[in-house]
Parts: sequence; structure tokens; C-alpha cells
Amino acid sequence: MFTKFIDNKAPPEVEVLDTTLRDGAQAKDVSFDIQAKVRIALALDQIGVHFIEAGWPGSNPKDELFFKEIKRYTLENAEIVAFTSTRRKGLSASQDPILEKVLDADTKWVTVFGKSWDLHVTEVLNTTLEENLNMVYDTIKYLKENGRSVIFDAEHFFDGFKRNSEYAMEVLRTAIEAGADRIVLADTNGGMLPHEVYNVVRYVVEELPGVPIGVHMHNDSGCAVANTVMGVVAGASHVHVTVNGIGERTGNADLCAVVPNLELKLGVRALKNRDGLKMLKQLSKLVYDLAGLKPNPYQPYVGDNAFAHKAGVHVDAILKNPVAYEHVPPESVGNRRSLAISELSGAANLIGWAKRELGLHLDKRDPAVRRALKRIKELENEGYSFDNAVASALLILLEELGLRGKAFRMLDWRVISEGNEGGSKSWGMVKVGNGETYLEAEEGIGPVEAVEKALRKALKNVVPEVENVSLVDYRVHLPGVSKHTESDVRVEITFTDGKRLWTTTSVSRNIIEASLKALMEGIEYYVIRNKLEKIRGVLQANEEAPTL
Amino acid sequence: MFTKFIDNKAPPEVEVLDTTLRDGAQAKDVSFDIQAKVRIALALDQIGVHFIEAGWPGSNPKDELFFKEIKRYTLENAEIVAFTSTRRKGLSASQDPILEKVLDADTKWVTVFGKSWDLHVTEVLNTTLEENLNMVYDTIKYLKENGRSVIFDAEHFFDGFKRNSEYAMEVLRTAIEAGADRIVLADTNGGMLPHEVYNVVRYVVEELPGVPIGVHMHNDSGCAVANTVMGVVAGASHVHVTVNGIGERTGNADLCAVVPNLELKLGVRALKNRDGLKMLKQLSKLVYDLAGLKPNPYQPYVGDNAFAHKAGVHVDAILKNPVAYEHVPPESVGNRRSLAISELSGAANLIGWAKRELGLHLDKRDPAVRRALKRIKELENEGYSFDNAVASALLILLEELGLRGKAFRMLDWRVISEGNEGGSKSWGMVKVGNGETYLEAEEGIGPVEAVEKALRKALKNVVPEVENVSLVDYRVHLPGVSKHTESDVRVEITFTDGKRLWTTTSVSRNIIEASLKALMEGIEYYVIRNKLEKIRGVLQANEEAPTL
Repeated sequence: MFTKFIDNKAPPEVEVLDTTLRDGAQAKDVSFDIQAKVRIALALDQIGVHFIEAGWPGSNPKDELFFKEIKRYTLENAEIVAFTSTRRKGLSASQDPILEKVLDADTKWVTVFGKSWDLHVTEVLNTTLEENLNMVYDTIKYLKENGRSVIFDAEHFFDGFKRNSEYAMEVLRTAIEAGADRIVLADTNGGMLPHEVYNVVRYVVEELPGVPIGVHMHNDSGCAVANTVMGVVAGASHVHVTVNGIGERTGNADLCAVVPNLELKLGVRALKNRDGLKMLKQLSKLVYDLAGLKPNPYQPYVGDNAFAHKAGVHVDAILKNPVAYEHVPPESVGNRRSLAISELSGAANLIGWAKRELGLHLDKRDPAVRRALKRIKELENEGYSFDNAVASALLILLEELGLRGKAFRMLDWRVISEGNEGGSKSWGMVKVGNGETYLEAEEGIGPVEAVEKALRKALKNVVPEVENVSLVDYRVHLPGVSKHTESDVRVEITFTDGKRLWTTTSVSRNIIEASLKALMEGIEYYVIRNKLEKIRGVLQANEEAPTL
Repeated sequence: MFTKFIDNKAPPEVEVLDTTLRDGAQAKDVSFDIQAKVRIALALDQIGVHFIEAGWPGSNPKDELFFKEIKRYTLENAEIVAFTSTRRKGLSASQDPILEKVLDADTKWVTVFGKSWDLHVTEVLNTTLEENLNMVYDTIKYLKENGRSVIFDAEHFFDGFKRNSEYAMEVLRTAIEAGADRIVLADTNGGMLPHEVYNVVRYVVEELPGVPIGVHMHNDSGCAVANTVMGVVAGASHVHVTVNGIGERTGNADLCAVVPNLELKLGVRALKNRDGLKMLKQLSKLVYDLAGLKPNPYQPYVGDNAFAHKAGVHVDAILKNPVAYEHVPPESVGNRRSLAISELSGAANLIGWAKRELGLHLDKRDPAVRRALKRIKELENEGYSFDNAVASALLILLEELGLRGKAFRMLDWRVISEGNEGGSKSWGMVKVGNGETYLEAEEGIGPVEAVEKALRKALKNVVPEVENVSLVDYRVHLPGVSKHTESDVRVEITFTDGKRLWTTTSVSRNIIEASLKALMEGIEYYVIRNKLEKIRGVLQANEEAPTL
């Protein structure tokens, strides 16, 4: 009879702390601007992580700005967490200027990292083991006194435990005594193997009953995902991850593998949104794009090849019985089998977006849906990409559904830009119309900003609501061969009305034209969505489902 | 006192079977030509793997050719292994044409894969559980009778064991009875988690005493490396891997992580060559190149970033004590430490570039170097990034060295761009001078292409060599806050003269201005570099080092 050698001590649910914006931003060649940080935070909140560790106040002004900026949005699921180290040696916590900045960030939760490896205390911090305990205690105590909840991140815990387990445990006990709400065991050098992680985590969980224990794993031995899972199997109830595993050196535990492993395989609930898992591939893509990295097609769960079958023997078998060759259904993580006809799964995406963004219930056999997909496909072949620009795809769908009555047209535009060694200046002129025509001009430094200002000024006459719409992000990509200045450019613009975000895209060899088109679409989408919302309000008042 | 919950049953040494040339070649977008296969096989033999599984005779002619070709070489460490499935149902082994081809391949070792998951037998093979046992038995028996040693690869063993452990074990016992020399447990769908692998492998090892047990892991749950390690910790003495983990879907267990984990961390000998580990990075690079894949910089152990440290706190600590922040010494796997740009490494980088690109030997204490670094730092704070735009950094250095006599100046430029619903058009005008002035105009679709053409036309009068320079790449980044169309843009342009590549960068709120500046710098750099080369030629003719 089969005996299990390793006990599964996994709790029924775990908390997910995503640190893409903090630890992920330590990755080589990765830096997020403030708009990217906001977009990623909102996407993380949507899939339902519990905590978003977003930056280290005091380390750079961008992080501080983010904590202000994110307050403009209402998050549904996640708590924003500021990150900081223990106070400096020989200074009281209230005197430490960095801790002052952490309080200024005004988050409910703070992660404090502190040393738990004696070697680091004596060789790196150059202080005594005793003073390090005081630093841990004082910092946590001070933050607790100032109303914060504290996650204590025990840096190098596993290395420290291997060499001096007594001191490592003393650091944890000190943090608990000071009031830490979570204790996180970090494999900062990333060199642990899964059986070691299980042994140490289970020991700590049993030694510190009632204390929520977390794990924070790096990937230097190629085991970050496995080590995180083994931490949970050993009884951890809190995991630290980054999207796509981005992070310093070889990266962190990948949210996109850890979360489905927990939810689909261990039966441990990890996300607050029950449908969050289905948005995993989209989240992965967003973070790659905003980080300026090329997606890894071989990535587990969310990679383009994760459900691609090449060997003839397998393809044949899959058509007979998917479970025979797929560890999970691709749809469960928002991915798709690459054998499937893409038209079909494209339809599922488009229908899902129409439902989520516009409240429209459509059938994938609807001829309008199929016509829209065909046009989207053609545009993708020309260099368009709609994955992060859902509004532009929906406008095509709305047009095919007969719901896109053009409210206004761009009739003519002209830009003059000129400069010399002293600088440059631009003028933009725009004529828009909806029967009557409106011509306006504006100036700016760059040509796009000049013509955008002119466009807004002209549109105010036709669409007064344009006042409510502001830009959150403006991005320029070279979609294809970027050999020449005459390349196509793809512009991606993200808008907000203070409540929601939406993104449009346009491709042209002329950056001004691409920008104007994406701007026009963003305003148009806003107008149509508002109209649909009003209609839905009326329909719902009549208790009718807004089915088309 | 600390108790270990998981027993470490790892043997003192394991055999490594590399299947890059067989299972690895199943990866999407990967195919090896015969020369590539030979080069990879020889490199694998050199580092000291025990087995090289090189192809499936009968599946394609390239594989058959390889088995002939490799016989021309004497291997020091590895056995070449042919791969095949069990005989077809309802046919005797000696009648099976594929098994005939396997014997023709004339290898001492053969891997036979067979079904061990009842679902696969009944649903995919469409045969009885009994006939499957006969297929396993007959195939192995036939190969043994023909003098082969046999590795039996139990496909889907873990999935099969979970659902019908009795039948899965019966398949293994049948293979042993037929004379199999190795029994390999395969996670073909790649969905296992590490604790499950340990439980199953240890059970099998204890049930089949004296039989060498192996593991073959796929990466669909992101745990292939960890699962292989856990198999060894549970008592497996034979592991299947591919270089860089390439393979179908999300790939296989990565040799480049499994082998150092075993040797450096578990103390298990895995390679026959004691210095094999030091060639790991080189092997990784070779396979990427021959597979036509871009290396993954974040790859554990062998990635370019595997020992790259970015965060200020870490860089400082590493200089004090490498073990504090590195799980293994980078040299142990043929890799090296790299510290990302900081004041300290900035000087070393700049001096290195000056030497490599311009042949200048500089000292880091040189005041000109320090002034240049200061300016570079300031520009980086404004959104510049010089990591991939060395030419622009070197122009600053050349200016501080007094070697940047301005050959020509951009006096004035103007662009007009206009469009309507039918498309767009742009005109560019440029006036350059070096005493005399030259004014030229050109047209194009986008504003940047129009003004670039005009600039080249004007420069031809001043710098005739501009004809030799063409553009290789043109990129637009938003370096900082990309909130508005009035954001700064960073333009990066790569040039070639047919022999060398160089890249410049410029930042401005006006994309046209940024593009013009980067273009001007690219031409200027070309002119100065050519002058320095001529001078160096003269100096070297006089046998003097070109030291400044």
C-alpha cells in the first residue's frame, strides 16, 4: 500500500503579496514609470491579490509619487504596502528620515525587512547581534504605534537558519514581540532546494503557533516556484511573488505559476477574485509590455507555447482526450491551446471584454462578432496589438454591431514644428465636424502635444464631456522592423474619467496621425460607453437583461 | 531542537541522460541541423554526461543520419542512446519496422517509452491493459536479445500512479522482468508538484530494491528542476535533462540548473568530468545559438544576470563578502559577477568602452573621465540611458578630453505635417553649417523621416562620408512620466558603416528634435572615430602606444 512520506500541511487559503513594483523593479533592464505602476497595481487588484508591495519610500522620488497617485483610485481587493528596512543602527526609529518617508506614504500596511543571518549583521551591517535585535524591535514597534500593520520580512532567513538557527529564531521572536502581523521567511540569495524549505518552514510554523508565516523566494537555484509551493505544503499561509517572476538576478517566484499551482493543484485558495485566474495571461502580457521585456513563450501556464503541441503523437492524443496531455485546461488561466482555431478563442476574448467593459452579452456565432474578429485579425497582421488596447477592439465590434454612430469626424489637421540650437516649438491646427465644423489651433513644444491640445479645444464644441477625460499613459512602440525613421509606429493611449481606465491604439508611419487617431478613439469610446450605460440603466430599471 | 521532516535519500552519484537532441528538439521554433547535433553531442560528452539521447530512428531521416555521423567521433564519457516506443499493438516486435530502424542505428543503449497510465492505454492506444503489458515486455525482450541495454521510460507514470497505482507498478515490474536496465518515471504532462514527486519516487525506490530508478520531468507547473532534485532526494539515481530546459510546451528539466544543484548543493556527483561544471555557461550559449534562440538573461546559474547585482544595498555588501549575496561562486559554473552601473562601476564601464571602441587608454582618476561621468549621471537623471547607446556617452567623454571639435552645426530646422481622413504627408527643412550654410528640404509621410532625409541631404555638402552610414535601428522610448503627449521621449538610433555598429541617444519633449540630435551625434561619432583611427595608425607605425 502506498504511504505518503511528506505531510501536506497546506492551509485552505493563503494570502498573496505581489512585489512586482518593488522587488520586480530590481530586475536588470526593468524600470516602471509611474503610469505603468498604476496600471499594474490596478490589474493586480482586479485579479484579486491581497497585498501590492509598491515601492520603498525614501529610495527614490518615483516611489513616493506612486503612493500619492494610487490614492486617487478605489481598490477592490488589495492593500497597498510600503517597503522599508529596519532603522539605521545607533539612531532611534523616530529620528530615522527613511521611516519618516514611510509614514508619509500613508499606507495601512508596511513591510519591514531585517537581518536574520548573523553573518550579515556582523559583516555587512557591522553591528552587534544585540543591536540588530533592537533595530528590528524598535522599527516594528514604532510603525505599530503609528497605526501601521507590519509584515516582517526576515532577510536571508534560510541561510541564517542553516548556520545559526538559534539567532535566526530569536530575530523572529523579537519581531513578534514588537507586534509584527506577518512573519516572512526570505530566501534572499535564492539558493534553497525544496526539501530544505519544507524542513525549515514546517519547523518555524510549529515553533510559532498562531503566527501567520509567509515565504519570499528567489530563483537562483531554479526552484522559486517549487520552494514557494513547498512552503505552503509545510504550512505557510502568505506568499510573496512577482508577475512573470521578474526580479533581481534570476528573479522571484512567478505569480503566474505559483497561484495556479496553489489553486488548481493544491486546492488552496489564493486570489480574492474567483475569476482572477482567468485573467492571468493578460496580466502577464501587460507586465512584460510595461517592463519593456519580450514575453517568454515557454513560460508555464501563460506562455504562448504552454499548451502548444508539436509531436505528432501528442496532437493526435489531444484531439481524443485533452486531459491525456494537458496538466490543466488552458482556459483556466486565460491561455489557449495552440491547436485550436484561433478565430474561436479570439471570439471568447472579445465577448469577454464586451461583457466586462460594456455589459453586452454576445454569442460567438453572431455574424457581427465574426466580422469584427476578421477585421481585428487583419489589423494585427498590419502591426496592431489589441491585447492591452481593448477599447480599440471594442470600437470595431461596436461598429459591426451598428452601435458606433460617428459623433464627430476629424476633417483636417496640420502641425508645424521648428527649432534650432536653442530649443524647439510646435503649432497644431485641427478641424473637426459633425455637420458644423470647428477649427482650432494650439501650441506646445512637441508636435503631438500641440495637435492634441488643438484637438481637445475643437472637440469641446462637439463633445463637452471631453473635459472629464484625462490621459493616464501615452506610449510609442515600433511594431515591426524598426530599421528606419520611416517605420510604422504604434501609439497606445490610456485614458481615465477618474473612475475607470481604457486604452486605445493606432498604427501609422506618421506618429502625429497615429496619436490623433488613438486620441479620437479614446474620446469616442468614452461617449459610446456612457450612452450604453444609460441604456442599460433604463433596461435594468425594467428588469430586463441587456442582451443583444 | 530542529528535526528534519524529509529524509534525504540521495545516492552519492547519479547518471545524467541529456535529451536535448531528442526531447529538446520537440520545442516550438527549434530544429537542429545535423552539424548542430554533432557539435552539441560533442560538447555534452566533454562536460561529462553519461547518456546522450539523440533521436528517434524511423521518425525522420535526419535522426538516422546522425547515428551514422556520430560514429566518426570517439566519445570520452557518454553513451549515445536511440529512442523508440513500444512495438505496435497486434504485431510482433521483430515485425515492427520502427524497431528494425532502431537496431540499424547500432547504439549500445536504447530508450523504450511505454504507457503506464491506464487512461492512455484504453483511450489513446485503444487497446487492452493486458496487450499494453505485452507490448512493453516484447519490445524490451527483443532489444535485449539483440544485445542492447534498455532504459524503460514509463510515460505519464505520475499521472498513472495517482489514478491506478497498481497498474502503473505492474507496467514497471513487467519491464524489469523483460530485462530493462533502468526504469525511468516520466512526468510527461509536467504537472506534478515536488512533494508528490518525492512521495511517489521514494515509494517506487523502496518497492523495487536494487533497480536503478530515474526521473524525466517536464516544466508545465514551473517545477521541472525542483521535481528532478526531489526525485534524487527520494532516491533516484538517473536524471533526464535538456540544456537550457528546451523542450515541448514549457520544456524539460534544465541541465544547467539540475546539475549544479546536485553537485554544489546536494553533494551528489553528476558529471563524469570533474571540471565539467565550469563549462556550463559555454554549453548553454552553444545550444541557444544552434537552436536559434536568444539566451535568457535571467536563467539560473548561466544567465547573464544570474550574478548581476543592481540594488545599492546589495552591491555594497557583495564588495564586502560575496557569500553574503551569492548562493554559489559564479566561476563554479563558468559565469561571472556583474555589477550594474553605479558611480564606481561607471568609470570602469566608460574606460572599457573607450578602449574597445576608440582604442583610448584612460585612467579612472583622469579629471576628464570624472567630469564626463558627472555629466552622464546628470543626463541619466533627466531620462537618458547610455547602456545601449555607448556612442553618445563616448562623445561626452571626447568633449571633456578636448577631442570633439564640432565639425558642423545644426542651425535651423522646420517640419510641416498635415493630414485628413485620407492620409498624411510631411515636409522637412534643415539648415546646417560649418562656416558656410546649407539649406535643404525633403518630404515623407512621417515628420521624422522627412526631416531626416533633409538632414542627410544638407550634411552631404559638409561631410561627404555620410553616404557610407546607414540606419540599423530606430527606437522611441518614454523614459519618465508618460502621462501626457507632452512627455519627454528618448530616441535611440543604431548606425552602421557596413563594418561596425554604434548607437546614439537623445531626449527631448519634441520627438523631431530628439531624433535630429541623435542623428547628428551618430554622424559626428563616425567622423571622430575615423579621425582617431587614422591617428592611431600613424602612432602604431611609430611603435608608440596610443595612451592619452
